[in-house]
Amino acid sequence: MLDDTRIAFLKKDYPKGFPGYCGIEVLKVDNGIFHSMLKVRSEHKQQDGFVHAGVIATMADHTAGYSLYTVVPDDIRVLTIEFKINYFKPALGEKIICKSKVLNMGKNISVAESEIFMIAQSTETQISKAIVTLAMVPITKIISS
Amino acid sequence: MLDDTRIAFLKKDYPKGFPGYCGIEVLKVDNGIFHSMLKVRSEHKQQDGFVHAGVIATMADHTAGYSLYTVVPDDIRVLTIEFKINYFKPALGEKIICKSKVLNMGKNISVAESEIFMIAQSTETQISKAIVTLAMVPITKIISS
Amino acid sequence: MLDDTRIAFLKKDYPKGFPGYCGIEVLKVDNGIFHSMLKVRSEHKQQDGFVHAGVIATMADHTAGYSLYTVVPDDIRVLTIEFKINYFKPALGEKIICKSKVLNMGKNISVAESEIFMIAQSTETQISKAIVTLAMVPITKIISS
Amino acid sequence: MLDDTRIAFLKKDYPKGFPGYCGIEVLKVDNGIFHSMLKVRSEHKQQDGFVHAGVIATMADHTAGYSLYTVVPDDIRVLTIEFKINYFKPALGEKIICKSKVLNMGKNISVAESEIFMIAQSTETQISKAIVTLAMVPITKIISS
Repeated sequence: MLDDTRIAFLKKDYPKGFPGYCGIEVLKVDNGIFHSMLKVRSEHKQQDGFVHAGVIATMADHTAGYSLYTVVPDDIRVLTIEFKINYFKPALGEKIICKSKVLNMGKNISVAESEIFMIAQSTETQISKAIVTLAMVPITKIISS
Repeated sequence: MLDDTRIAFLKKDYPKGFPGYCGIEVLKVDNGIFHSMLKVRSEHKQQDGFVHAGVIATMADHTAGYSLYTVVPDDIRVLTIEFKINYFKPALGEKIICKSKVLNMGKNISVAESEIFMIAQSTETQISKAIVTLAMVPITKIISS
Repeated sequence: MLDDTRIAFLKKDYPKGFPGYCGIEVLKVDNGIFHSMLKVRSEHKQQDGFVHAGVIATMADHTAGYSLYTVVPDDIRVLTIEFKINYFKPALGEKIICKSKVLNMGKNISVAESEIFMIAQSTETQISKAIVTLAMVPITKIISS
Repeated sequence: MLDDTRIAFLKKDYPKGFPGYCGIEVLKVDNGIFHSMLKVRSEHKQQDGFVHAGVIATMADHTAGYSLYTVVPDDIRVLTIEFKINYFKPALGEKIICKSKVLNMGKNISVAESEIFMIAQSTETQISKAIVTLAMVPITKIISS
């Protein structure tokens, strides 16, 4: 259940490792919903000056996974089975925002989607959309998988 | 044409920005082929200790794009339209290797694939596969797109 | 522009060939929106009695393409570059409904999504979601592509 | 195990329902491999005279599923979780051939790929590639899923 303790845990858990290294921050946590934000820095860009597709994919995947974490029991681990992401236009601007939500809860497999926006000169524009297929694995089984 | 000058340029261009920040290195450059490598560090992992899906997606996308750079004219920029990536098993080990190749060359849109392997205790195991759809855009048009 | 003539044309054009052979019918046409419907018959099923993933994929792809046809000039042809479809649960029931809409209009490439529902005992349940990447090609160029 | 009895069963099972209605035929069955073929007829086409993306997607999905059927126990049913398919060029010609193989066998989820070719004037050209994620479900659980 998504109580204050669980919200605090997820906020602390989210940036561990690579997402924190990328500078991705938690914006919002709700039932089946997770939003994140990135302040764009030079190390997020690719060779032409756009925000790298890999940063956006990392936000899309990780935030989708945490949208599922808001609605599963504490002893379930979420692992990405696969995802697909479309880029609508080159990403520019000061901030990237990712809004993820659970689309379908299954018994062992769930599906979430992520919509990604850039904030450039105070205007929010959608730049990307992803669909993410997630496995829900009891923590006791994760080592042997 | 993929001559020594172009190979040297691509090797230098590849790690600019985010891929270099992630520590991804060039392994091999050939006609329609690009391989990259990552020495796994703690900042590449997710909350459970596996290499983050986002790092692997970044390698898959970026290396696929550069496999196309080996076979397009110098004034063409490659932008990711979309990609899809499957994760076969949680990623562990000391190194991640990504092997990308062009599957189909179109006039404006091409398709490449990336196969990703982990090296754990000297054993190479495939952990992921991606298909990447890429736009080939003349550099003069990239600002207005 | 989506006037009555264009709507009538699209309704007549939609079932030509394979979609008509499958029995897919037009439900609704609006700006950037297209809905279709299938009355489930035995020839739509797979070996276990569920509606075949291929029928649902055909609806998802074709209806997404026609959502784009509602907002492009008459001399543009829409071709599928790629799509990805998730199946949330096995499809049963009397009818399948597909609701497609344009997500992003580009100059040469657009993205649409399709949400697919089954009607079983008067209850509508979402069973699938697809993202479809579409090329917009002037009819004069389609032969030489 | 893939013995003669199992091969005969899979050849008979494959065209049941929608694939048979589409006219898709079995070409080859081997360990982890399944090939199928379609003689192109007018009802397979779309409004511009190309083979419909939905027919090709149906072949890609169904044949991928049967490549997995060659390597799972008899009491396992294969269901498509999701797939992604790229179209390299408009499909023409007299025949479509689909060559599928298992990429990765998991415990509950496996991944297969399909490569699709058109035969036009005796020349085989690849026109499409798909990656398919498949659930392996014991037949006893399929009703309650």
